[in-house]
Amino acid sequence: MITGKTRLIAHFGYPIEPVKAPMIYNPWFERRGIAAVVVPMGVAPADYASTIATLRRFTNFHGALVTMPHKVATLDLVDELTPTARIAGAANAILRRPDGSLVGDQFDGAGFVRGVIGKGWQPAGRRVLVAGTGGVGCAIAASLAAAGVAEMMLFDTSDASAQALAGRLRHHYPALQVHTGSRDPAGYDLVVNATPLGMKPDDPLPFDVTRIAPGTFVGEVVMTQKYTPLLQAARARGCPVQVGTDMLFEMIPAYLEFFGFGTATVEELTETAVLEH
Amino acid sequence: MITGKTRLIAHFGYPIEPVKAPMIYNPWFERRGIAAVVVPMGVAPADYASTIATLRRFTNFHGALVTMPHKVATLDLVDELTPTARIAGAANAILRRPDGSLVGDQFDGAGFVRGVIGKGWQPAGRRVLVAGTGGVGCAIAASLAAAGVAEMMLFDTSDASAQALAGRLRHHYPALQVHTGSRDPAGYDLVVNATPLGMKPDDPLPFDVTRIAPGTFVGEVVMTQKYTPLLQAARARGCPVQVGTDMLFEMIPAYLEFFGFGTATVEELTETAVLEH
Repeated sequence: MITGKTRLIAHFGYPIEPVKAPMIYNPWFERRGIAAVVVPMGVAPADYASTIATLRRFTNFHGALVTMPHKVATLDLVDELTPTARIAGAANAILRRPDGSLVGDQFDGAGFVRGVIGKGWQPAGRRVLVAGTGGVGCAIAASLAAAGVAEMMLFDTSDASAQALAGRLRHHYPALQVHTGSRDPAGYDLVVNATPLGMKPDDPLPFDVTRIAPGTFVGEVVMTQKYTPLLQAARARGCPVQVGTDMLFEMIPAYLEFFGFGTATVEELTETAVLEH
Repeated sequence: MITGKTRLIAHFGYPIEPVKAPMIYNPWFERRGIAAVVVPMGVAPADYASTIATLRRFTNFHGALVTMPHKVATLDLVDELTPTARIAGAANAILRRPDGSLVGDQFDGAGFVRGVIGKGWQPAGRRVLVAGTGGVGCAIAASLAAAGVAEMMLFDTSDASAQALAGRLRHHYPALQVHTGSRDPAGYDLVVNATPLGMKPDDPLPFDVTRIAPGTFVGEVVMTQKYTPLLQAARARGCPVQVGTDMLFEMIPAYLEFFGFGTATVEELTETAVLEH
């Protein structure tokens, strides 16, 4: 129930119609008795800066969820960014602190990392390979670094993109060993497909699966099917896997903690979500 | 249930905490399956102009409810005003039309007039006396003029205020006979107390009740008690009366029609409202 005391979490996107977050967050707020509401706002890119400048001054503004196409623009519109947002080169959440300042963070990668940790994989000291250094690959790499992996290989068809990400990682995590240029999955504890390969039926596999050891964890960002050809091949070799949509669901508890609303399990959130609307 | 397709009705006020409209409108929208939501936004006066300029550009902005202290400022921030808003000198509702233009209207007076019509009083061709030409008195006078009364006496302790309102009424309703300067209630079909008299226990009555004929309808805006001393005296003389809060409830169906959501009875709205929150 929205009242005059309800804290406002804006949900910025363009187009705004496809968003699902209100149907996940709001029923959970209701269940928990949290006086907050996620309100979709369709904001064109040209209007985004003035929108942030305006809404941050509302007395009941609590923060924002940010989706396409505003994640990169958010970097320049907040007062502070977490290292994860800086490395990812994008922010998908804004919190207004009690002093009125805005902090931007990025939870795409946190969702991925929470998912694999929840499946029993331990990041500390591990060697990982991330293929694809676009938006989602950068976010996953940033969150893996924050989670304490020791060594990371980055691969992208644009080596300049991989190198740029490597530079940001080294700046924020000097102890992390970062390499670029190879997508050979042999010898890694975790390999991640953060490329679009697997979305189309005739896509090649992103890795040579014959070189993936049976104990290696294989993560995926493609969501067009639950088990992509990569994940099917990985499972056939006895590898533990994470499907693409797990990242989406697992990021929600991270958002909730960021907004100061405690925590929730994915099971709880799934139970209260009303996604058929 | 709020989704990406929900139309946004901003509720502007400062402070915003005391507002009740979300608990009246939103449960009714839910009941009727209307994809709209009233969202309170605490906006300081200095930020109000930029807020309107920003929100009117949201793809899902439908309109706004406007409360203190923004009703007068709204006049200069919309593209068009109804005669009622112009005469009242304030707007408490904004609608974005399909072409993107904003129209401002004012429903305080509409609530009063709907209430008395609902009680069987017919405005067409009648003589009315309005005492008090502050915000609410102007709004009631504007709506009585729109409803077709023939003659109106306006009284205020500031005669300049009454004269200014008379001038606006004459401009928009040339056929209406408008007078100022007397609060003698003899000979009117409807007399309205739109002054604060009656809020304090030792206030004098706004009219000489011995001069109110038994058939005269007596309306009140004071809400500190259901039957104010004026209404008690009027009832004792056999006059039909309207209590102060009726204006508040009766204006809601007018708002709903303005926003294009069809109509509702006060009974329906009262049934779905969740005011104990």
